Amino acid sequence: MKLNEQARGVYVIAATPFDDNGAVDQDSINSMVDGYLAAGVSGITILGMMGEANKLSEAESKSVITGVLNRVDQRVPVVVGVSSAGLDPLVALSKFSMDAGAAGVMATPIPSIRTDEALYGYFERVCNAIGSQTPLVFQDYPFVTSVHASVPVLERLIDDFAQIVMIKHEDWPGLSKLTRLRAGSDSGAHRRVSILVGNGGMYLPPELGRGADGAMTGFAYPEMLVDVCDLYSAGKAEQGEDLFDLYLPLLRYEAQPGIGLALRKELLRRRGLMASSYVRAPGPRLSKEDHAELDSLVARLERSLHAAGIQPRNLV
Amino acid sequence: MKLNEQARGVYVIAATPFDDNGAVDQDSINSMVDGYLAAGVSGITILGMMGEANKLSEAESKSVITGVLNRVDQRVPVVVGVSSAGLDPLVALSKFSMDAGAAGVMATPIPSIRTDEALYGYFERVCNAIGSQTPLVFQDYPFVTSVHASVPVLERLIDDFAQIVMIKHEDWPGLSKLTRLRAGSDSGAHRRVSILVGNGGMYLPPELGRGADGAMTGFAYPEMLVDVCDLYSAGKAEQGEDLFDLYLPLLRYEAQPGIGLALRKELLRRRGLMASSYVRAPGPRLSKEDHAELDSLVARLERSLHAAGIQPRNLV
Amino acid sequence: MKLNEQARGVYVIAATPFDDNGAVDQDSINSMVDGYLAAGVSGITILGMMGEANKLSEAESKSVITGVLNRVDQRVPVVVGVSSAGLDPLVALSKFSMDAGAAGVMATPIPSIRTDEALYGYFERVCNAIGSQTPLVFQDYPFVTSVHASVPVLERLIDDFAQIVMIKHEDWPGLSKLTRLRAGSDSGAHRRVSILVGNGGMYLPPELGRGADGAMTGFAYPEMLVDVCDLYSAGKAEQGEDLFDLYLPLLRYEAQPGIGLALRKELLRRRGLMASSYVRAPGPRLSKEDHAELDSLVARLERSLHAAGIQPRNLV
Amino acid sequence: MKLNEQARGVYVIAATPFDDNGAVDQDSINSMVDGYLAAGVSGITILGMMGEANKLSEAESKSVITGVLNRVDQRVPVVVGVSSAGLDPLVALSKFSMDAGAAGVMATPIPSIRTDEALYGYFERVCNAIGSQTPLVFQDYPFVTSVHASVPVLERLIDDFAQIVMIKHEDWPGLSKLTRLRAGSDSGAHRRVSILVGNGGMYLPPELGRGADGAMTGFAYPEMLVDVCDLYSAGKAEQGEDLFDLYLPLLRYEAQPGIGLALRKELLRRRGLMASSYVRAPGPRLSKEDHAELDSLVARLERSLHAAGIQPRNLV
Repeated sequence: MKLNEQARGVYVIAATPFDDNGAVDQDSINSMVDGYLAAGVSGITILGMMGEANKLSEAESKSVITGVLNRVDQRVPVVVGVSSAGLDPLVALSKFSMDAGAAGVMATPIPSIRTDEALYGYFERVCNAIGSQTPLVFQDYPFVTSVHASVPVLERLIDDFAQIVMIKHEDWPGLSKLTRLRAGSDSGAHRRVSILVGNGGMYLPPELGRGADGAMTGFAYPEMLVDVCDLYSAGKAEQGEDLFDLYLPLLRYEAQPGIGLALRKELLRRRGLMASSYVRAPGPRLSKEDHAELDSLVARLERSLHAAGIQPRNLV
Repeated sequence: MKLNEQARGVYVIAATPFDDNGAVDQDSINSMVDGYLAAGVSGITILGMMGEANKLSEAESKSVITGVLNRVDQRVPVVVGVSSAGLDPLVALSKFSMDAGAAGVMATPIPSIRTDEALYGYFERVCNAIGSQTPLVFQDYPFVTSVHASVPVLERLIDDFAQIVMIKHEDWPGLSKLTRLRAGSDSGAHRRVSILVGNGGMYLPPELGRGADGAMTGFAYPEMLVDVCDLYSAGKAEQGEDLFDLYLPLLRYEAQPGIGLALRKELLRRRGLMASSYVRAPGPRLSKEDHAELDSLVARLERSLHAAGIQPRNLV
Repeated sequence: MKLNEQARGVYVIAATPFDDNGAVDQDSINSMVDGYLAAGVSGITILGMMGEANKLSEAESKSVITGVLNRVDQRVPVVVGVSSAGLDPLVALSKFSMDAGAAGVMATPIPSIRTDEALYGYFERVCNAIGSQTPLVFQDYPFVTSVHASVPVLERLIDDFAQIVMIKHEDWPGLSKLTRLRAGSDSGAHRRVSILVGNGGMYLPPELGRGADGAMTGFAYPEMLVDVCDLYSAGKAEQGEDLFDLYLPLLRYEAQPGIGLALRKELLRRRGLMASSYVRAPGPRLSKEDHAELDSLVARLERSLHAAGIQPRNLV
Repeated sequence: MKLNEQARGVYVIAATPFDDNGAVDQDSINSMVDGYLAAGVSGITILGMMGEANKLSEAESKSVITGVLNRVDQRVPVVVGVSSAGLDPLVALSKFSMDAGAAGVMATPIPSIRTDEALYGYFERVCNAIGSQTPLVFQDYPFVTSVHASVPVLERLIDDFAQIVMIKHEDWPGLSKLTRLRAGSDSGAHRRVSILVGNGGMYLPPELGRGADGAMTGFAYPEMLVDVCDLYSAGKAEQGEDLFDLYLPLLRYEAQPGIGLALRKELLRRRGLMASSYVRAPGPRLSKEDHAELDSLVARLERSLHAAGIQPRNLV
């Protein structure tokens, strides 16, 4: 099961569950995967930025890959984040992942890239090094990488490297970029790749309206993202946006940079997807005020869902 | 009427209205001021980042200051953004503003500052240069300035310079910072200054819950910000948050960086506060897709207000 | 006298002389211009980054432009830095400069530019706004602007806008970029523009070897830069590099960022080109250790020159 | 042999030698170590930024550590760079290094740090995590890390954590910082730690004059750095600076960011310290122009040494 340009729906960005001592927790990997699948996700992305990949040893990274792939057991495609400062580590992790059964890999540009030419050159090198049979997701996330990808350079890469099958779109602001990318494929000038949006899902409705195929993000209520994508697919955009707006207060709270990872893990813990909300150092810790705000936002969400006649779902 | 630590409510960040040829539009300054006052704002801040201050000539800046002050006519305090790469231009604009009747001035740190010590030293210099009788707002906006202010350095500045009466709080994430600043004044260890929040108002409810005195931001529906602040002041936090959440989908759309200024000006134009949504170059322009999304979000807001039994307000 | 692609030699980056109270000092403008001309410079660039342009009022900027142009009196071309956050101020200053007799203007990209496309778009806009009759120098200085210009985008701009007649080349490292730019014009694929190098002159010999036409920098001993360029032009590269190396210890000391401006002004003061080494705030101040190091480096330079049989020159 | 505050002289930043296929080359590790020792270095630092640490697998890193330690065989202290995005990998590598016989470890702040408080907190955490028995070098290199350390925060760390025994000083400009740090220890207000300077050695003479104890950098002619430090120690500063200036043209060429690593490895290869100048991807490659400039600069250096009556040294 290789990733391809037809990918759509929600590829949830998986957290990496630790126990309260900070060790990778395989039991929670299992419950998390089960919960994500119960939410109806179309795929799972592991070892991304929110997966604390750069705080893991190589052995831990491999145990996460193997653990997730085993539990998923081919039910949905799994994408593995392989970004690295060096090409050799990137290639090694990519090979391990594909050999273990991943559907594809995801990479960001290295932070030192500053021109279209350098960006093209870097991904040309990555594509050649991982091999044309390895599907690649281009993660376009300038807020974190500080690398900005223009539409022309993305189109050149798409045209020249068939293995680039998906863009994780989280430029910000990014709506006009999405429109331009879709205009380029709609006109037939460029191959159409899958575009899944990130940024915590903050702009999912307008992005779906502009041609995104879904979301690749880790909001702790992925079932909402799934339903919104389904409603848009079914031509029920207004209903989709209605549903989205119910979750928006909590979603925008979780989407804060930095502390967002701790908030997300705490929500996943509360929902039973993982046993601990431990975040590895250096990383954020929640205060009692943070917990109280989560309490309040979750209670408000439940009231909103109730008022809208929507039954909250349990994932485990 | 000088700004002081008791300032609270909404100090709206004013846009700078141009006509369709890009000239400063004094008629629209008048209608904008009237609209803001009709919204119930407690103060007006001009020539901030969203006021395109750095695209104006000195004469234009002065005409905006004079124009706004004349129209406001002492009804609410007016704060003038005076940030500059050089201390001399900052002092000159500060003096002009105070002489013209401004209530205080606002400054950001210059972008080259990288340590607490350098930050303290810069504001010490600014305070001394503008004179102790000029009330100063510290704009804490690392997303744009790239300068981060720790709580200890802010407290040192507050302790040492009585003229610093307000912090425009838009660190992101910034909730724990707000809690720490309030703990410092609640305990009596440090003077209590006014804290008004920015970031387009994205986190106004939790921020008010943590001790913010209001907002200093330019959302095109300032009456909502005013009402939310009033409800929190009246002990009706849940109601305040209910009201806020109705506007959140549009607010989060307007809060996009870059294009947000064009969206805001277009909304102000639609609401009759200014004749043109012109943004000076280099600056964003709206596409037909942007306009359509605004149409949709405004229509959805109106439906939400209607469903909640709230009468939409006209400001002009 | 308009700037064109044949420009070569040393265009000295002029400091802006203040008196000890920080006022623009017209007498020192005169002595500085006289000194630069005595050094044999081919042109003078004013209101660049080292000219503290962003700490001047508009009236002061104009007085510097007028003062320099009057004193130069058409003997060499004068280029005026017009970079600004806004297009309107840039155009206004450009028009004032050209009307006053400047040979051309110089602009950096605004710091928010992050892609080739955005860079092209910005300079397209600048070129159109200042008018095709105004010669433009593209200042390529990523260390300060954080904007990187790829060779392809520079070539596109050169091809499309005849008024871009010069690149101030101070990318770092930048030697291979220079080689590529020259290969592009040597092959006839692109128009050949003048390339003058910056970075304080740190790499002048290899840069001349790779096809630079000279230097645009403000080292306090511009006569050395002039002589080195002349020796290279005369086919005496080794001699040029010998001369350069004598000054390198002092030149690399002056080339430190930040404090470099204060060091340069102090050297110019010692040499009699200006009455005061005042730097406007916020800006560096020299310590007694800095002064002692300057003393030592200047004494060592004089010994080196003496040992090499070179007579030190006075410029005033 | 643990690193302590008395460390002085040259701790050479070792490159990581690869063969022409990019594999770690243990034979070249041996010849490189031999060469460095022949140059008279006081210590060796491995897996720093110039050691391409972040392009190595964990097994490769360990093989470099073991390989170097074995060859050095206790003759000089070896410091291991352990910087990492995560605390767990940092601790693991630190423990491995100390168990294997390293004299200490070196760490940079993580790039997200922006305030004195965050910087203190991070190093407090690092010190506690690696254990107080592990000597720590604070690498202060804002040009690459983008983290700036004020003198007060460095002094607080020095006062509170006895295991911080050395600062690798490469702030830029950094001379006044060095003077302030030394004033703090000279007055007895703060513990005196070793300060070795970096930045390729560009400012070694004034830095030694201001109280640096030596250099920690990787210039391909470390014997010069050793001799300069020795001359300064012997009170022969002028002679030291004379010697330094002979190498400055080549040193400033090698000190270019980015391509500098490739230039350095090529020089080390030419000098026989390693078999190949291979740099791992993504990394720079030398052009024929770069090679020709190296040829010329080395020939010029040899002529300068000859003229000064200095015998060039072979290290292998």
